Amino acid sequence: MSAAVLCIGTEITRGEIVNTNATWLCDTLTSIGFEVTEVASIDDDRPRIIDTLLRLSRDHEVIACTGGLGPTTDDLTTEAVGLAAGLPLVRDPPTVAAIQDRFRRLGRALVASNLKQADFPSGSTILTNAVGTAPGFGLRIGKSIAFFFPGVPMELKRIWQDHVDQVLREMAPRCTYQLRLRTFGQPESTVGQMLDGVEQAHPGVIIGYRASFPEIEIKILARGVDLADAKSRSEAAAIVVRERLGAIVHSEGTQTLVGAVAAALRATGGTLALAESCTGGLVAHMLTSEPASDYLLGAMVTYSNEIKTALLGVPAETLQTQGAVSREVAIAMAQGALRATSATHSIAITGIAGPTGGTAEKPVGLVHWAVAHPGGVQARDRVFVGDRGRIQRMAAFASLDLLRRIALGSDQ
Amino acid sequence: MSAAVLCIGTEITRGEIVNTNATWLCDTLTSIGFEVTEVASIDDDRPRIIDTLLRLSRDHEVIACTGGLGPTTDDLTTEAVGLAAGLPLVRDPPTVAAIQDRFRRLGRALVASNLKQADFPSGSTILTNAVGTAPGFGLRIGKSIAFFFPGVPMELKRIWQDHVDQVLREMAPRCTYQLRLRTFGQPESTVGQMLDGVEQAHPGVIIGYRASFPEIEIKILARGVDLADAKSRSEAAAIVVRERLGAIVHSEGTQTLVGAVAAALRATGGTLALAESCTGGLVAHMLTSEPASDYLLGAMVTYSNEIKTALLGVPAETLQTQGAVSREVAIAMAQGALRATSATHSIAITGIAGPTGGTAEKPVGLVHWAVAHPGGVQARDRVFVGDRGRIQRMAAFASLDLLRRIALGSDQ
Repeated sequence: MSAAVLCIGTEITRGEIVNTNATWLCDTLTSIGFEVTEVASIDDDRPRIIDTLLRLSRDHEVIACTGGLGPTTDDLTTEAVGLAAGLPLVRDPPTVAAIQDRFRRLGRALVASNLKQADFPSGSTILTNAVGTAPGFGLRIGKSIAFFFPGVPMELKRIWQDHVDQVLREMAPRCTYQLRLRTFGQPESTVGQMLDGVEQAHPGVIIGYRASFPEIEIKILARGVDLADAKSRSEAAAIVVRERLGAIVHSEGTQTLVGAVAAALRATGGTLALAESCTGGLVAHMLTSEPASDYLLGAMVTYSNEIKTALLGVPAETLQTQGAVSREVAIAMAQGALRATSATHSIAITGIAGPTGGTAEKPVGLVHWAVAHPGGVQARDRVFVGDRGRIQRMAAFASLDLLRRIALGSDQ
Repeated sequence: MSAAVLCIGTEITRGEIVNTNATWLCDTLTSIGFEVTEVASIDDDRPRIIDTLLRLSRDHEVIACTGGLGPTTDDLTTEAVGLAAGLPLVRDPPTVAAIQDRFRRLGRALVASNLKQADFPSGSTILTNAVGTAPGFGLRIGKSIAFFFPGVPMELKRIWQDHVDQVLREMAPRCTYQLRLRTFGQPESTVGQMLDGVEQAHPGVIIGYRASFPEIEIKILARGVDLADAKSRSEAAAIVVRERLGAIVHSEGTQTLVGAVAAALRATGGTLALAESCTGGLVAHMLTSEPASDYLLGAMVTYSNEIKTALLGVPAETLQTQGAVSREVAIAMAQGALRATSATHSIAITGIAGPTGGTAEKPVGLVHWAVAHPGGVQARDRVFVGDRGRIQRMAAFASLDLLRRIALGSDQ
């Protein structure tokens, strides 16, 4: 079953926004079991919308379209769909009432153009919008069933969940199943080599890779004669994948590395403190993107030597003899973070994120990190390659992964 | 002059990656003066690549295409281009030598499929790749001039700069000019209202908005009879735009809010310390995304009350009587950060980022922030709406913007 995604809006073709709606629709349609073969993004141009809709409707069973349902003169989608399908637009009284009600509640004045959003091609199924003004709609065009959504990501997702997800799941060939594993520590090419031959040994299984730097997600998609068959094929392949990848798999499903670290600490009632230099608060920011106040006590970003001594008690002598970017300073920072906060675990990171500040002996990219824990302290170092952002990100992930392994008692 | 962008790869149509190459190409082509009217993303399918290329070459003067130039059997772009243009593939000896040399330097073994990347449709202009294995190429297809790039963003951008940018600038109608202003503090709809009528009063000028939450970038694009005319139209409109928007404009061109803060501090030799609670290190992370060690002394992420007292000297009594999320605690944190680091300026933030922890009196989203400076301390508060990430981001930007205004002596 073939599907296409159509995104309408000059803000996309002018490069003013990143088209995350397209990615979300492609990912969702693929996971349900459709094969998405084209994503078309076009500007707000009536003839082009009509041509593109007619073209896509010749080749695809499903079209998911976003954008152009707003109240302004730029918003042409509904009108163009009517012309493409040869259907007149009809005003829908319940939608008119809902728009009037919404404006009353918000205390805003209704203008005539707002009621444009209550017009739909005759015979459409109206998809009510619980979180915005513009409803979506669905109708048949040529061999396709086409769904039209507002471009606001939150509204698209809500309408999809409320009205479309179940319909498409029933339409889709119910014979695919997908498992996801998340890894850190090896590049995509190495992970690919580690899984060499798994597809060949498991008919119907496709191994997919999704790199979200520096993590690699492994998708194990199986097609079978029915859902149960697909599931068992996917699970059988997953056993081999887990065994081959070993400890680089930090999570399954949608859990992140941060989630894995938090779960490992929570399981034993551990608490955490951070002492960051070159990562400048990135580890703290990553951890606090999800609720963290039950295990994260505090973090210190200590850029200057004086602050490393004042806040973390790093001996001035160590800083002088070993340099701020050294194994000894990383260990002293980790121990200082424990003393300052009474946490059970700490992470310390010191390095040269660049673009300047490197020397022949200590090049840009050199990072030392340490994890202090009830059983002692472990330190690691590496020269990371890339720009400032990549070096900071690699260092943050590497130190979180070391903590994860230590907290799980699996560090080698 | 019409342009199209074509992105080839099943990783896009399956929704495995966000297509930032398309956004970058659209933005770049638009800023040069082309009108991009379609972005097509298709899977790795030979007939579909050929059909799409031929279709786009009928309607556009320029096609920019990424993806499918790799060494694997999935990479079909070059072969499909040859078939679409009716040209045989020819192996290019200098490219063969460059690939062999690259592999020798990296100490990797060359396999036969790597040499596929030295094949090009006969008559192509080869676009050497200074940062990767696969060169790009350019050739004429129908009425279009088409350029083909690898999908790796860094390689695309480098080849563009090295070979394509100048060619297209010379091709483009040289009668457009664009200025950019960046704002923080008002939503897009309000900024739009503030600029109501500017386009009408300035013929040839288009005001564009690009929201990168929570900032709004204003693009003032002018078309004229020639470049000088376009530039003077754009600049005349910019004078009115700056006057209407006032202090919410923090930067011009590509400078970020962080850049504006850093510039304001550097201008007076100021230094900075941070005391973050609910933003959890986000401000530190934002500041250290660019080199900051010359003005940023350190940051403390103090989640628990005990750590606020231990690291920042916030009186336990203040925490008890006012609560951790209060104006008094924000001010005490800001003053404590100055004491702990001897910085000239500090930012402190305390709030409830959610999703839980709110009360009737102090709801989720309530944030207090303070900036301490040589002339005293200023505090602000607000209830931000949205999920945890949005609340943290709004609080970080609001506190940086307050510091910017204070450091510039323009705070009202």
